[in-house]
Amino acid sequence: MAGVNLHLPLYKPNPTRSSSSHTPSAYTTRTTDLITIPQNLAYWESIHTDIDSHLKKSIQIREPISVFEPMHHFTFTPPKTTASALCVAACEVVGGNREDAVVAASAIHLMYASIYTHNLLLETVRVGSESGPGIENLHKFGSNIELLTSDGIVPFAFELLAGSGNDSGRTLQVVIEIAKAVGAQGMVAGEDDGVEAEKLGGEVARQLHGCGAACGAIMGGGTLEEIERLKRYGVYVGKIEGVLSDEGKDEGVKVELVERLRGLALKELECFDGKKIQQISSIVGV
Amino acid sequence: MAGVNLHLPLYKPNPTRSSSSHTPSAYTTRTTDLITIPQNLAYWESIHTDIDSHLKKSIQIREPISVFEPMHHFTFTPPKTTASALCVAACEVVGGNREDAVVAASAIHLMYASIYTHNLLLETVRVGSESGPGIENLHKFGSNIELLTSDGIVPFAFELLAGSGNDSGRTLQVVIEIAKAVGAQGMVAGEDDGVEAEKLGGEVARQLHGCGAACGAIMGGGTLEEIERLKRYGVYVGKIEGVLSDEGKDEGVKVELVERLRGLALKELECFDGKKIQQISSIVGV
Repeated sequence: MAGVNLHLPLYKPNPTRSSSSHTPSAYTTRTTDLITIPQNLAYWESIHTDIDSHLKKSIQIREPISVFEPMHHFTFTPPKTTASALCVAACEVVGGNREDAVVAASAIHLMYASIYTHNLLLETVRVGSESGPGIENLHKFGSNIELLTSDGIVPFAFELLAGSGNDSGRTLQVVIEIAKAVGAQGMVAGEDDGVEAEKLGGEVARQLHGCGAACGAIMGGGTLEEIERLKRYGVYVGKIEGVLSDEGKDEGVKVELVERLRGLALKELECFDGKKIQQISSIVGV
Repeated sequence: MAGVNLHLPLYKPNPTRSSSSHTPSAYTTRTTDLITIPQNLAYWESIHTDIDSHLKKSIQIREPISVFEPMHHFTFTPPKTTASALCVAACEVVGGNREDAVVAASAIHLMYASIYTHNLLLETVRVGSESGPGIENLHKFGSNIELLTSDGIVPFAFELLAGSGNDSGRTLQVVIEIAKAVGAQGMVAGEDDGVEAEKLGGEVARQLHGCGAACGAIMGGGTLEEIERLKRYGVYVGKIEGVLSDEGKDEGVKVELVERLRGLALKELECFDGKKIQQISSIVGV
């Protein structure tokens, strides 16, 4: 396994405060200097390649360009999320075929893309009102299109799922899991953190990791217990990423927190065959 | 059949421009003086009662109140829409049982409620920026909650559908129909009218009438042709309502347009048993 820095999804896009130390694109993934988590990179990259290729087939730029160009843009602009990758990995852990989980994983990516775009818009509105005009220029599309597109992506994800041709019963279970993660329950989770929209987006994004793993286990034909355990594993992975991306926290505190969460995460995998968990556990550096 | 004025869903809430001629609540349904469409009121009311009772069971005000109170509010505040009623009526036309369509009809109502709330918010933003502060007081909840709730209602509707326990294959077909109506295709339809968000909401709401009728036909086990015909019938009903609610149009022109649309609508019902279409055709005054 190659030792590489963990690539973190960005929950808090900050397109305006670019200092000289930033790269020209403000949307590159962040890493933290002290905590390096080795991953089985090839495995995760192969998953992302499969999800990407499915999404590219599903979302082609076609007429009317004014609708499908921004949808394509906002689907492929956000950094990769481990939430969708976990979906495929969880499917394989319970003995399912990758193909069975790729559509669900694509739907998870779309939900994440919608949250990401929404946060981008909210950040614009917030910073815009503080700093006056000019902010719009940083965005390829206007805030109106950002809002319409991020809203339009959500039903599109359900359409993709429902039309997959996969097992109907499992697909409906996945619809419920995803709807709960991004809907009312996501709002509940957001409430616990206070109603700030940005935090809400972050919390929903973390929930999406648990949801992703659960959906993969469902599509792979996992038992109820397997689904629940993989869901909790996914939530811990999401929490670890949350800690790592928290720029306000002391590095020592972060190391301690990540160690504790990693232990809890791995406990959830104990009931599975040791060989099968090699791939999925590599995401927390085992 | 009782001759009553057609109740029109409001696509363009206008909470701020209340003149002395307005009732205190700006959200009452509008009627037009010249065009009176007789309806089989008891039939449509019985449908709305069934949908309402299902929604009330599904969306109860529970903890955390800050999430479920606005969701309840924004579900039951919008005027009734014939889009959801058409769903139940179409199911009955193709020989299905009402129970099979009530969940789909509830999901259609929720989508409509989300569009309605979104439009309310956009109108506030638009008028607010023109008229300065004070506008917020007209809303029970802040614009932040309006946005979060209208977004949260969409996945909740899919959750409701997927968990209904109805036929899986038909349910997945309904998920696709609804997702198309409110998602990318809705945006396409909006584009044709220009990108104004308000118009888009209106167009999506009209599409929802076709979608509602199609979903009812699907749940009732209709053939492909029956589904397509009822979908077009629904679109005509939506267009008639659009004409009737257009305050800028001359009454004479309206009468002519409605007559033409009514003829086209009824043509779509010709393939059905004459007795069975009595109820559904009463919505266009036959």
